[in-house]
Amino acid sequence: MTYFESVKQINFEGIDSKNPLAFKFYNPTEKINGQTMEEFLRFGVAYWHTLTQDLSDPFGAGTAIRPWDHLTGMDQAKARVEAAFEFFEKLGVKYFCFHDVDIAPEGNSLRESYKNLDTIVSMIKGYMKDSGVKLLWNTANNFTHPRFVHGAASSNHADVFAYAAAKVKKGLEIGKELGGENYVFWGGREGYETLLNTDLKLEQDNLARFFQMAVDYAREIDFDAQFLIEPKPKEPTTHQYDFDSQSTHAFLLNYGLQDHFKLNIEANHATLAGHTFEHELRYARVNGMLGSVDANQGDPLLGWDTDEFPTDLYSTVLAMYEIIKNGGLGSGGLNFDAKVRRGSFEAEDLFHAHIAGMDSFAIGYKVAQKMIDDQVFESILADRYHTFSEGIGLDIVNGATDFKKLEAHALSLGEIKHQSGRLEVIKATINQYLFKAIANQ
Amino acid sequence: MTYFESVKQINFEGIDSKNPLAFKFYNPTEKINGQTMEEFLRFGVAYWHTLTQDLSDPFGAGTAIRPWDHLTGMDQAKARVEAAFEFFEKLGVKYFCFHDVDIAPEGNSLRESYKNLDTIVSMIKGYMKDSGVKLLWNTANNFTHPRFVHGAASSNHADVFAYAAAKVKKGLEIGKELGGENYVFWGGREGYETLLNTDLKLEQDNLARFFQMAVDYAREIDFDAQFLIEPKPKEPTTHQYDFDSQSTHAFLLNYGLQDHFKLNIEANHATLAGHTFEHELRYARVNGMLGSVDANQGDPLLGWDTDEFPTDLYSTVLAMYEIIKNGGLGSGGLNFDAKVRRGSFEAEDLFHAHIAGMDSFAIGYKVAQKMIDDQVFESILADRYHTFSEGIGLDIVNGATDFKKLEAHALSLGEIKHQSGRLEVIKATINQYLFKAIANQ
Amino acid sequence: MTYFESVKQINFEGIDSKNPLAFKFYNPTEKINGQTMEEFLRFGVAYWHTLTQDLSDPFGAGTAIRPWDHLTGMDQAKARVEAAFEFFEKLGVKYFCFHDVDIAPEGNSLRESYKNLDTIVSMIKGYMKDSGVKLLWNTANNFTHPRFVHGAASSNHADVFAYAAAKVKKGLEIGKELGGENYVFWGGREGYETLLNTDLKLEQDNLARFFQMAVDYAREIDFDAQFLIEPKPKEPTTHQYDFDSQSTHAFLLNYGLQDHFKLNIEANHATLAGHTFEHELRYARVNGMLGSVDANQGDPLLGWDTDEFPTDLYSTVLAMYEIIKNGGLGSGGLNFDAKVRRGSFEAEDLFHAHIAGMDSFAIGYKVAQKMIDDQVFESILADRYHTFSEGIGLDIVNGATDFKKLEAHALSLGEIKHQSGRLEVIKATINQYLFKAIANQ
Amino acid sequence: MTYFESVKQINFEGIDSKNPLAFKFYNPTEKINGQTMEEFLRFGVAYWHTLTQDLSDPFGAGTAIRPWDHLTGMDQAKARVEAAFEFFEKLGVKYFCFHDVDIAPEGNSLRESYKNLDTIVSMIKGYMKDSGVKLLWNTANNFTHPRFVHGAASSNHADVFAYAAAKVKKGLEIGKELGGENYVFWGGREGYETLLNTDLKLEQDNLARFFQMAVDYAREIDFDAQFLIEPKPKEPTTHQYDFDSQSTHAFLLNYGLQDHFKLNIEANHATLAGHTFEHELRYARVNGMLGSVDANQGDPLLGWDTDEFPTDLYSTVLAMYEIIKNGGLGSGGLNFDAKVRRGSFEAEDLFHAHIAGMDSFAIGYKVAQKMIDDQVFESILADRYHTFSEGIGLDIVNGATDFKKLEAHALSLGEIKHQSGRLEVIKATINQYLFKAIANQ
Repeated sequence: MTYFESVKQINFEGIDSKNPLAFKFYNPTEKINGQTMEEFLRFGVAYWHTLTQDLSDPFGAGTAIRPWDHLTGMDQAKARVEAAFEFFEKLGVKYFCFHDVDIAPEGNSLRESYKNLDTIVSMIKGYMKDSGVKLLWNTANNFTHPRFVHGAASSNHADVFAYAAAKVKKGLEIGKELGGENYVFWGGREGYETLLNTDLKLEQDNLARFFQMAVDYAREIDFDAQFLIEPKPKEPTTHQYDFDSQSTHAFLLNYGLQDHFKLNIEANHATLAGHTFEHELRYARVNGMLGSVDANQGDPLLGWDTDEFPTDLYSTVLAMYEIIKNGGLGSGGLNFDAKVRRGSFEAEDLFHAHIAGMDSFAIGYKVAQKMIDDQVFESILADRYHTFSEGIGLDIVNGATDFKKLEAHALSLGEIKHQSGRLEVIKATINQYLFKAIANQ
Repeated sequence: MTYFESVKQINFEGIDSKNPLAFKFYNPTEKINGQTMEEFLRFGVAYWHTLTQDLSDPFGAGTAIRPWDHLTGMDQAKARVEAAFEFFEKLGVKYFCFHDVDIAPEGNSLRESYKNLDTIVSMIKGYMKDSGVKLLWNTANNFTHPRFVHGAASSNHADVFAYAAAKVKKGLEIGKELGGENYVFWGGREGYETLLNTDLKLEQDNLARFFQMAVDYAREIDFDAQFLIEPKPKEPTTHQYDFDSQSTHAFLLNYGLQDHFKLNIEANHATLAGHTFEHELRYARVNGMLGSVDANQGDPLLGWDTDEFPTDLYSTVLAMYEIIKNGGLGSGGLNFDAKVRRGSFEAEDLFHAHIAGMDSFAIGYKVAQKMIDDQVFESILADRYHTFSEGIGLDIVNGATDFKKLEAHALSLGEIKHQSGRLEVIKATINQYLFKAIANQ
Repeated sequence: MTYFESVKQINFEGIDSKNPLAFKFYNPTEKINGQTMEEFLRFGVAYWHTLTQDLSDPFGAGTAIRPWDHLTGMDQAKARVEAAFEFFEKLGVKYFCFHDVDIAPEGNSLRESYKNLDTIVSMIKGYMKDSGVKLLWNTANNFTHPRFVHGAASSNHADVFAYAAAKVKKGLEIGKELGGENYVFWGGREGYETLLNTDLKLEQDNLARFFQMAVDYAREIDFDAQFLIEPKPKEPTTHQYDFDSQSTHAFLLNYGLQDHFKLNIEANHATLAGHTFEHELRYARVNGMLGSVDANQGDPLLGWDTDEFPTDLYSTVLAMYEIIKNGGLGSGGLNFDAKVRRGSFEAEDLFHAHIAGMDSFAIGYKVAQKMIDDQVFESILADRYHTFSEGIGLDIVNGATDFKKLEAHALSLGEIKHQSGRLEVIKATINQYLFKAIANQ
Repeated sequence: MTYFESVKQINFEGIDSKNPLAFKFYNPTEKINGQTMEEFLRFGVAYWHTLTQDLSDPFGAGTAIRPWDHLTGMDQAKARVEAAFEFFEKLGVKYFCFHDVDIAPEGNSLRESYKNLDTIVSMIKGYMKDSGVKLLWNTANNFTHPRFVHGAASSNHADVFAYAAAKVKKGLEIGKELGGENYVFWGGREGYETLLNTDLKLEQDNLARFFQMAVDYAREIDFDAQFLIEPKPKEPTTHQYDFDSQSTHAFLLNYGLQDHFKLNIEANHATLAGHTFEHELRYARVNGMLGSVDANQGDPLLGWDTDEFPTDLYSTVLAMYEIIKNGGLGSGGLNFDAKVRRGSFEAEDLFHAHIAGMDSFAIGYKVAQKMIDDQVFESILADRYHTFSEGIGLDIVNGATDFKKLEAHALSLGEIKHQSGRLEVIKATINQYLFKAIANQ
């Protein structure tokens, strides 16, 4: 059976092809720096946006037209699995990610939900084996159901904490069953709607306890996936506890959890927090916390999570720069946590959108690698910070000085001579590399 | 005498050149669509950012290091004129723009300010004649001096209104003297700090009276430059009356001034108002109000006017699309209302920054023209709106229907069949054209 | 039958009452300036937020627990009417507002939708007669259904335009049938998701044609309600054509529609557009465009329409100031376009929230009236702008001067002496009046 | 000699007084909860905004009219000291704060700057002794001078690091000399303009080294003031390393500095970071990091640091709630890091503004204390979180459970019954307490 009849296998055809259903820049087998694009980029499809999303918004009913719309319940869930793997295969994507409720409908009881999950997980396992597609990560949706109205692990109600724990426990078991390489925590309701009725301390303490129990249980069942926390500042809650990468780092350090978690950085969450995507990646990278990436983009003029497919090449270049400098993402990958626009409601748009995103990251990869090959940023830094390689600067870095010695040095100085930071040249250089990396390949 | 000794004439060297002081994409004599780049793009240098700006910010003193820093008063003003024309010539820019106070220091009285202006204007006139550089527009700075603390034409004080009028009168005379092609009004203090002590109606009425008197005086002295209003939503005031293009349009229509003014659209002002640059251009264009452009860009994560040099190619492509569809900017141009970063304080950075901006608009021009040649957007629109070319749609457009007929039509309809808006494909297409327009030239 | 059994008639009990289900400040029969609060404030209940809303958000299913949840379809619609009028009566609110789809479910065809509407409208008419509750305004929901994915009156598809016209036609007939005092247009989808596939000019032209046909049809059926446009800058679309009050004014002036429409100003829409609520009210007022108010508030740290019940007294004081200066709202009123928080899901919260809002506007009313009685702002303005009552200032206002006379005046001036704007004193004064207006009553 | 001749000692006159130069709510000797207002509120005057600030903005020259304007250099510095203590005394404020450059002009060399400082510090010491006014905190301005263009402790240049160290060393000595109760670090340039030329890791490492050396030197000279870091997200730099309270906490934990620093929370910095003031206070409080407060407010519609005097009573109530729950601010206080508006340029406005701020915090104090006396928030929390005091909830809090036990519990549950969060009631309650706390005093 086929769900996307009109779509054939997506091939690499190059920039001059007029076929919109073809990669123009992404070539899975092209080698860069000794690795194929496919090996390095580790793209993942987000089950929720691709298979489950109906493109509703707060002012409108769903517009998506999907080949599995005529089905319901478990029948629909099964059809989605079939469609998913057809999609992965045609697109040539090797990873996927899901929340529990994306793959199987919640039952009338937790036990029934488990049963539904077991059925689908077993089906997925077969498809994975046949296709070679792997699970980048899974997670538990502890935010959609009304029981999570006041939070999950940070709920005011102990029963909800327990319920959330059960769902994560099951999620860890599913992750193990499917060989998931990571397990993600995104705390959509872990935060507050208002401080006025919130015990911030108790809620954060409980959240830390919850994480510790998850760590313990994973160890107990020998599930060695990388644990990831995905920061987001707000939406749906007014304030989310995992506000951004540095806040999440504070939380982990504060509760002694820093060795068990890395970060899953999402571009649009970065901008909602007032940061660039590359800032969040950089902070995570230099602190050894960069685990995986939710590849999307936001609209800087809109104040909510638009989860657009990533097409801004400036963003993909700078993201790939951080990822290459990180030595890749390890067990992580580039998950398209992105949805087609409400107006792009045809099933075919799902392919178009992923192609757009994969091509954009392919360009980003090539440009970033070329800039690294040419040591563009590295030379700038070496030059700008050279005073820390010698004399008083080296003493500072080596901890071999103090305020008295520094004062003596300062008193001996004439006017300090600065160099321009040359930001305009650097930006022009990035524009030039955009073309160089493609034109000269 | 030379002010920028280290810099030679800027030439076109192409993308593979490693010389940062060369154009990589802009080629003044390259013809596109029958016109040279130089003729169509009409770049202008902003006197204030290039010759006067010291790169101070609200938390820091100026950092700029300029070859005319050792001078003061009229001597400095004269040196700036010499440096300005050296700069225009080396860069190959044919237009410039200024506020009165940029070119000559204010005197101890209005009369002395006039005298200072006359001296410098006469000097500039000579340089213009010799160099062939033209005045894109001039304007009066009615916002810096403390007398404008409560506004200028919208001040609460009639004497300030009169003072502002005198400065604009002189500005019109200078414009005429120098053959200025436009005259700009940016109302930095025309708005309010707080509604709590503001008579909004009187202030807006007075502002309209002021504009009408300016129109009358220009006619009286036969100065036929295009009048331009430059919208900005806020900063320095909390609310500026010329908030954005549509608000300014409302103001002009409300006071019957719409035939005498066009708009000078600035990219960073657009984003501060919550719009894209291209939105403001489009609104102005389709309403016959697009007069000129202040070419810069903002930082979407910062809430103030950063006035960066434009390097974002998405923005320059979409801006140039609107400008080409407008048939060019007429008497307007692309004025770099942009300042080098505080950290880019060397005089040479002024060249780097303009080169970055001119190259970015050159790419934007090529890409937009190529997309128009291929009718990319035009085909999309023709297809999307085809129902308005026939039947009930044509009746709507022709005003040949009413609610009763439309209801009858609606009652006869089955389910309405929509097409995807294909935004992801369109964005991918723009990325492809970015490379096509350069690669295949 | 009763839906809100636990709630009795809401009475005025005063500030020291500990009963949360009582008005503390609002007293319908208390006279201010010769009118009762009830007569002047004209509060309205928004049917959608109170009877239909389920408190879902983009990341969560509905949490609302309502006494009519067990019913569906027309049975539920009828139960909602009964509950609505019980609610109005217990709360003592005399007006309500609705969209077509709030009161009756859409049928499988437009004809069936009409039939459903007719049934419910007839039922509502009876309840209105019995209760004395009136229809402040109704409107057509032309944004929720997927057919409006690309707009309604500004759709790319003529059939959708026709369908929207039919719905508004029916809405006008319902308004007439129920004696509606206003008819509202909120263009949730009238705008664009992206400029890249949008014919801005055609869409705005069509929108204007649509409005003109609505005006014509209302005249034809002798429906003399005030037409209102409700500005909103964005959400659900990226850009809405009725961005703010001044933009909407531009649109109306541009298409010659200004005499047929006033504005329905919503607080949260103002802040999303970058304005204060009072700015939008002021602009509308001084241009004779203030028609009605959607009374709510936003969260300044969140970038979407939170539609909170209004409790910020600074906002209600300044809003009531504008409304009093406007001589009241005429046929308009204060419609609570506000929803209880997702966490306030109990039916009783609907009462709490309306009480909070009504009390807040009652305080706002008292404080604003007291400040007007004492001529607080009026004295400030008279003093600040006094130079426009005499001499050159009066000439300016009377159009009896020109740039040459103004220059002569300016040249004769010494240093202009300014007065402080005293914003800090004014803000302190508002704080003092907050207490004075209540303490000394 | 007197600088503020027209202003007499500011007295408490109560709400009905029409004298704008009198406290209406603040009464230094009024006891609340056993302490006088003066003892608990510990108001401080910010030297820079009150004595040095000229009210310039990025588009305008200074407007301030000050009695010491006719002087320059050290003469002006001395006059400012005299004026400062006259101001403190007339206002009845017992604390002040300054940066080094506020009190004495920088010399031509670091040594000369030291000399200038020594002269003024000695003079200030005398005035402090005579008046009983104390130093809340001092700090070094390592951001205004062009030498700090690329940062101070996080500069790319080792000499600048040394220079900044010398200035802080001197600051610590001055703090000790004047008995300063705290020492503040605000890193205006400690961050980046662009990541593109920034070595984030080295800069943060160096910043940590700098802090450690400051701690060491203070210990060496027996200066036992509380060290405070003041978070701010951006402005002047694009990204500041002390982004917000939680980010700063991360930094301190990451470098093992957490025992040596507390936070100085500024209201306007909180909102620029996307947080409420009370969020930042709460986070600091529950983590034992709340040291002092910069009392001001921002304009939520403007994207820069407006540093307004605090008059929003909602904000002062919630701030005082956190401060009371913290058991006061210890050695910290409420420093008015606030400037009069550009339009409020008269010297008298300095008094008006401080009175407005002090009155607003006095109300905030009374209302918050009354709400605490009545256990308003405490009862809400006790009720909302009661499930964590027994059974499985208590096990969670005590760390006496795990995922398996929690799952077993979850499997045994029926539908979880939630209570409304009652936000609307709580907000209405705050409004009522606003009046109750004043009306019933």
